[in-house]
Amino acid sequence: MSAEVVSLHPRASEPSLAPMLALTAAGMNSVNTVILDRMQSQIPLIPALAGHLISGGGKRMRPMLTIAGAELCGYHGARHHKLAAAVEFIHTATLLHDDVVDGSDLRRGKATANMVFGNPASVLVGDFLFSRAFELMVEDGSLRVLKILSHASAVIAEGEVDQLTAQRHIETSEERYLSIIGAKTAALFAAATRIAAVVAERSEAEERALEDYGRNLGIAFQLVDDAIDYDSEAAESGKGKGDDFRDGKMTLPVILAYARGDAVERRFWQDAIAGFANSDDDLAHAVELIHRHDTVNATRERARHFVQRAIGAIAGFPAGEARAAMAEAAEFAVARRY
Amino acid sequence: MSAEVVSLHPRASEPSLAPMLALTAAGMNSVNTVILDRMQSQIPLIPALAGHLISGGGKRMRPMLTIAGAELCGYHGARHHKLAAAVEFIHTATLLHDDVVDGSDLRRGKATANMVFGNPASVLVGDFLFSRAFELMVEDGSLRVLKILSHASAVIAEGEVDQLTAQRHIETSEERYLSIIGAKTAALFAAATRIAAVVAERSEAEERALEDYGRNLGIAFQLVDDAIDYDSEAAESGKGKGDDFRDGKMTLPVILAYARGDAVERRFWQDAIAGFANSDDDLAHAVELIHRHDTVNATRERARHFVQRAIGAIAGFPAGEARAAMAEAAEFAVARRY
Repeated sequence: MSAEVVSLHPRASEPSLAPMLALTAAGMNSVNTVILDRMQSQIPLIPALAGHLISGGGKRMRPMLTIAGAELCGYHGARHHKLAAAVEFIHTATLLHDDVVDGSDLRRGKATANMVFGNPASVLVGDFLFSRAFELMVEDGSLRVLKILSHASAVIAEGEVDQLTAQRHIETSEERYLSIIGAKTAALFAAATRIAAVVAERSEAEERALEDYGRNLGIAFQLVDDAIDYDSEAAESGKGKGDDFRDGKMTLPVILAYARGDAVERRFWQDAIAGFANSDDDLAHAVELIHRHDTVNATRERARHFVQRAIGAIAGFPAGEARAAMAEAAEFAVARRY
Repeated sequence: MSAEVVSLHPRASEPSLAPMLALTAAGMNSVNTVILDRMQSQIPLIPALAGHLISGGGKRMRPMLTIAGAELCGYHGARHHKLAAAVEFIHTATLLHDDVVDGSDLRRGKATANMVFGNPASVLVGDFLFSRAFELMVEDGSLRVLKILSHASAVIAEGEVDQLTAQRHIETSEERYLSIIGAKTAALFAAATRIAAVVAERSEAEERALEDYGRNLGIAFQLVDDAIDYDSEAAESGKGKGDDFRDGKMTLPVILAYARGDAVERRFWQDAIAGFANSDDDLAHAVELIHRHDTVNATRERARHFVQRAIGAIAGFPAGEARAAMAEAAEFAVARRY
């Protein structure tokens, strides 16, 4: 366990996802049944392609957060199973489209769906899953949930377009980066946790508290993802190492290394992000510069800040298994090395 | 005016879209305001790309059908303006994704958005418009409309995937082709007209009648589109001439020419659809074979059959300006040469 995490939240051992998995095990069984049932179609390519990604070892963080949030709210119904599946379908649709947009060939250590089935099928099956997500929400029948998730979906797309616009632009600010990840990643985390309070019919304040937990956790999660892509000590992340670098994506480790670099280093970053220096040697040099300026750790430090805020957001809920599991899951998300 | 159209519906002149345009002019003004307002975003690339297609000379057939359907139902409110805009956003999203899927470079006589802005931006802005469509529906607040349009969206995606699976497969049957166009094209026409009856709070039977009008018109519309792609007499369709041929898409003119051809011709079609014979000379030969077996006219004949059904579907509504305009618009859709 790293010293920083200890200082924030004294704990006898490394933070673990185990309490979260235990808390949500029964609920996630139901969610997985809905997912497998509702990704079916008369068109065989649809479940084949969707299943490639859905069965591909994802952690299903987002639906798990909906289930955990419902536990925190003391909800004992079953509505959230369908809605959690809808959240995962929206997430899966964005992953399918992201991999097409980035031309990615590896995700979670496996060939991407676009590599196996082609870009056209990935685009269209993403559209199918997105539509199916809305069908699930309509079946549930809450306009409030529909509003939260349709808005989140629009915000996600805006964040993705914004990221595309920022790509290969070395002058991207930390503020803009935070705005991008707040949209492309944290909006769905926030919606996933907020809808738990909606189905549990809790107060607006509690909705906001759960939303804040999700949003801050989502930002932390993305910061750590972006740190890992340059972390020479990290285990393989399951996506192609150095993808962000080769794609010229402006993530916080780069933004900080550029800000802290001297004129020669800044020149290197300008060339690299513009796409003129992206060999394996260039990547190694980038990792070295990032190590020199300690920006992976600085990025993780920022993530810990957001995790603190996430944990603080649910402090008003009663202490118990659910709150403890959600707090530890947040710490786990930021301490992870893969 | 062709003899066939006269035999179905005696009319003094060529069928025209003018009565439909007059009927829906005021409503479409309101719809266009919603479209322009709601395609905006803080991310400048979104309205730029969306506007490229939305302002690109489309006829806005689908929202126009919603407006016309509402007129037919005697609806005097304003709810359908937002919903018609949602229908157009769904349609625009599918066009953006289709052009990426097909690698198209021309639509409505202009460079496609993917050619101007790139595939990644087209995929993501499509996702944005799709999400925005659902936000508009949620604002309206009818779960029934949400159900109809979320289901239509899933069916459209299934139809697109099915078409992708059938591509380059010469053995595609007429039945499967009709199933594909029923999903990829007619489902949205059917939903667009059905929701007019929903907002007007008409009976289930009237909902079904308007849905049948839309579905049959949508099938006819796609049949004519597919005929035009091989119609040597037709004016430029605005999309790249012979695109379907080069993409190996199995449309009715080809399915019928293959069925009616001798062994040598069938061999040619097998090679062509598989992608081994797709030069300009091959396209010219394909057009000649289609002319020899008269399958463009046979396809148009099928379209006229569906238009008859569309017109028949609304026969139970009171005679008047709306019903006459919708009937003539259906005839126009099938008589058009571009």
